Amino acid sequence: MSTTAPLRSLNINNINPHVKEAKYAVRGELAVRSEDYRAQLAKGSSGLPFDQVISANIGNPQQLDQKPITFFRQVLSLLENPALLEKEDVLVNQLGYKSDVIERAKWLLKTVGSVGAYSASPGATGIRESIAKFLEQRDGHSAEAKDIYLSAGASSGVSTLLHIICASPQTGVLVPIPQYPLYTASLSVLNAQCVPYYLDEAKNWGTDLEAIKGAYKEAVAAGTDVRAIVIINPGNPTGASLSVEDVKAVIDFAAEKKLVVIADEVYQTNVFKGRFHSFKGVLRDMQKAEPEKYKNVELASLHSVSKGMVGECGHRGGYFELVGIDPEVQEQIYKYVSISLCAPVIGQCLVEMMVNPPKEGEPSYALYKQEWDGIFAGLHKRAFALYEAFKDMEGVECGEPQGSMYLFPTITLSPKAIAAAKKEGRSPDEFYAFRLLDATGICVVAGSGFGQKEDTLHFRTTFLAPGTEWVGRITKFHKDLMDEFR
Amino acid sequence: MSTTAPLRSLNINNINPHVKEAKYAVRGELAVRSEDYRAQLAKGSSGLPFDQVISANIGNPQQLDQKPITFFRQVLSLLENPALLEKEDVLVNQLGYKSDVIERAKWLLKTVGSVGAYSASPGATGIRESIAKFLEQRDGHSAEAKDIYLSAGASSGVSTLLHIICASPQTGVLVPIPQYPLYTASLSVLNAQCVPYYLDEAKNWGTDLEAIKGAYKEAVAAGTDVRAIVIINPGNPTGASLSVEDVKAVIDFAAEKKLVVIADEVYQTNVFKGRFHSFKGVLRDMQKAEPEKYKNVELASLHSVSKGMVGECGHRGGYFELVGIDPEVQEQIYKYVSISLCAPVIGQCLVEMMVNPPKEGEPSYALYKQEWDGIFAGLHKRAFALYEAFKDMEGVECGEPQGSMYLFPTITLSPKAIAAAKKEGRSPDEFYAFRLLDATGICVVAGSGFGQKEDTLHFRTTFLAPGTEWVGRITKFHKDLMDEFR
Repeated sequence: MSTTAPLRSLNINNINPHVKEAKYAVRGELAVRSEDYRAQLAKGSSGLPFDQVISANIGNPQQLDQKPITFFRQVLSLLENPALLEKEDVLVNQLGYKSDVIERAKWLLKTVGSVGAYSASPGATGIRESIAKFLEQRDGHSAEAKDIYLSAGASSGVSTLLHIICASPQTGVLVPIPQYPLYTASLSVLNAQCVPYYLDEAKNWGTDLEAIKGAYKEAVAAGTDVRAIVIINPGNPTGASLSVEDVKAVIDFAAEKKLVVIADEVYQTNVFKGRFHSFKGVLRDMQKAEPEKYKNVELASLHSVSKGMVGECGHRGGYFELVGIDPEVQEQIYKYVSISLCAPVIGQCLVEMMVNPPKEGEPSYALYKQEWDGIFAGLHKRAFALYEAFKDMEGVECGEPQGSMYLFPTITLSPKAIAAAKKEGRSPDEFYAFRLLDATGICVVAGSGFGQKEDTLHFRTTFLAPGTEWVGRITKFHKDLMDEFR
Repeated sequence: MSTTAPLRSLNINNINPHVKEAKYAVRGELAVRSEDYRAQLAKGSSGLPFDQVISANIGNPQQLDQKPITFFRQVLSLLENPALLEKEDVLVNQLGYKSDVIERAKWLLKTVGSVGAYSASPGATGIRESIAKFLEQRDGHSAEAKDIYLSAGASSGVSTLLHIICASPQTGVLVPIPQYPLYTASLSVLNAQCVPYYLDEAKNWGTDLEAIKGAYKEAVAAGTDVRAIVIINPGNPTGASLSVEDVKAVIDFAAEKKLVVIADEVYQTNVFKGRFHSFKGVLRDMQKAEPEKYKNVELASLHSVSKGMVGECGHRGGYFELVGIDPEVQEQIYKYVSISLCAPVIGQCLVEMMVNPPKEGEPSYALYKQEWDGIFAGLHKRAFALYEAFKDMEGVECGEPQGSMYLFPTITLSPKAIAAAKKEGRSPDEFYAFRLLDATGICVVAGSGFGQKEDTLHFRTTFLAPGTEWVGRITKFHKDLMDEFR
């Protein structure tokens, strides 16, 4: 550190060290370089070996191919300009708005007053009631509006939950590795312990109870007060979709060790194989079978409008449901969320429509279903195109797509390539990702951004980009790189 | 604490103690009771002595009388449903959308892509450029897009800044008392020191440099590392609008002691007396006059769409501009905001329109100006009606309205009333506020929620509620209370 008097109040050595420690690779150096390339291309620069940047680093559906669902956006347009409701004939006869669009907009306006007004801190009551109904239908078990908190996307919900749980530097939270770096970054900022447990790549990235037990035991032995376990299902970055047995095993362990289960279920509609098993539904089934054993399990389950066929991440809408949380603790959560006033109200309205979309027989249903199915089919097609390409690449292994928006292949690089990475001061997976970007304009995230088992290399790519031509660009790049460092 | 094994992971004694310590009265017990009354009235309950609840506790314009600005909402409706742009003739000829509405929507869509997509972490580039232009015009000094960060309302911007600044439990931030409790609550959560400095009620709640110096000196003597000073101008809850001399004095002190100035300027258009002096503008003037002395002053200035004639708090749009912040520190701010991905994109678009509204000669200008002036006049009228009523009340003193959306009168209660409050276990100002709510349905916030000088009593009320009839209800209540405890 400098010995001269500082010129300013803030410098890199005296700001919050926990913010400094936080890592967030999804929008890091690689992403910044990709934006530079995009800007160069926009200015007509021709020195680059590609004519398009593909942001496969972020699950940002509408930045790429995915179109918004018409019903949702028609309703939102009326919420933003309620004066349009005075011209119903124009809406219906000339703009093609169906009667259920108009009814929904009127109902939502009645519920929130104006989308320009603050709602109650945990969200508008009518919207919380809609979410409770959705959860009852999804899980076949009761849900209550008072336990539901609207948030600005799931990220802000995670931040709230971790703020409550992290009581001291010894507080630990079990986090899957690889993981979406929101968890490790938030725990860094809160100066709490991330207790990593490894997912089982050999079982298509499922949870491995032995790994969880081992991580827990080791952390407790080291003096960590482990209080919660995070599960991302379907997985990010892995794409894994958990079996009901895996979900049960986690709940059973949480019950035994008194851990809060934080179930990040934002990809619950992105499931290609089998079906989604919600933690809430499975927990209630277990409680029914063995009430004494499971009655005190604490669960927070998160969902959002950002992913799935909705894909409205720019609207920052989400919610979490609390199950089994002490009422006094819940009061503190209420107070905490009230400090930031309320989640964006337009985002809340979008959450309502996500959980309560047009039903069969209603005027907007046919188009809604067509759009939904079309988006699902497109994601499925691109996921498998990418998967097939990975299968054919030398030294690349990738499980069959199961869910979420990502594939997370393993790559094996030659000692020569690893030496070249070292020379550049980069980890081998970062070296690979930078090379890929420089050669093709395709931006992925190096596996180390999500945590890696020692001596394994991966990268995460979304399968959101339109078409499948870009998949061929990866194949060619990969072959060239393998040849260069053979 | 209980000696039996806990049933759950989380209880009130083992969650984050810093969250527990945080206080946020604006949405506390009184607000909860007012919502109960509202629910009772909605169910047709007739046991209450009033037939309407007036939420004068929150600056929530559109929950009350304030209508949204037409231009803003028309553009937003097109951003939500861009398909409408394919029917320009219907928009123009049958829905009354002017050409500048359509042009702005097209431009914003080009800038953000889709409002359903994440933007860059600090906000969409085109919108940051618009804000820079606005700041240049407002202040007559240059501004750069790279120094501007969009946020989910100003609250989230404050949280970001305090997260960076608060490096240890010894870090202190000077906060005006009375203050909007966001600051004390956030500092509690961050386990940092609030260093209170009292505003000068005798000078209509202006800043008192001697009070600031005294608070600073005392804190430093106690081992606090004071790193920043918060100024709310125009004031919340006080309504004070600072003179250029007051602003200069604060900057001068900040320069001397190397403090970051956090200028909360969300009420910058709510000024009834004199004009608004931005910290940025005054700082640049001072730097021009004495470059050496002021060149390293660090400033963060916040603004939002929530207040003023815009009043769109439910949209959670805001921004802060950084001045003189070390580039390495700015990189950390960039990373920190990227963890929560981006501010709501629709809110970002609203910020753009707030800083770049229709101009004279443009098609939407006449209506925009009429609406803007009408809202301003309404606020002015109600502020003065309330002020006149307070002047006539026994034991109530209130300065002439200057700005923001609040009045903050002093009340003097009799020893008998103070004894009655004590018996109920409440502070006298809370006792007064609960009595007011129970008798009239009008919800205000007790002064203690904002901090009070010893032995002074106040309450904060907005002047947003429609009409002035409710002012008479306060007058009557006050007289009855004074008589009861004489």
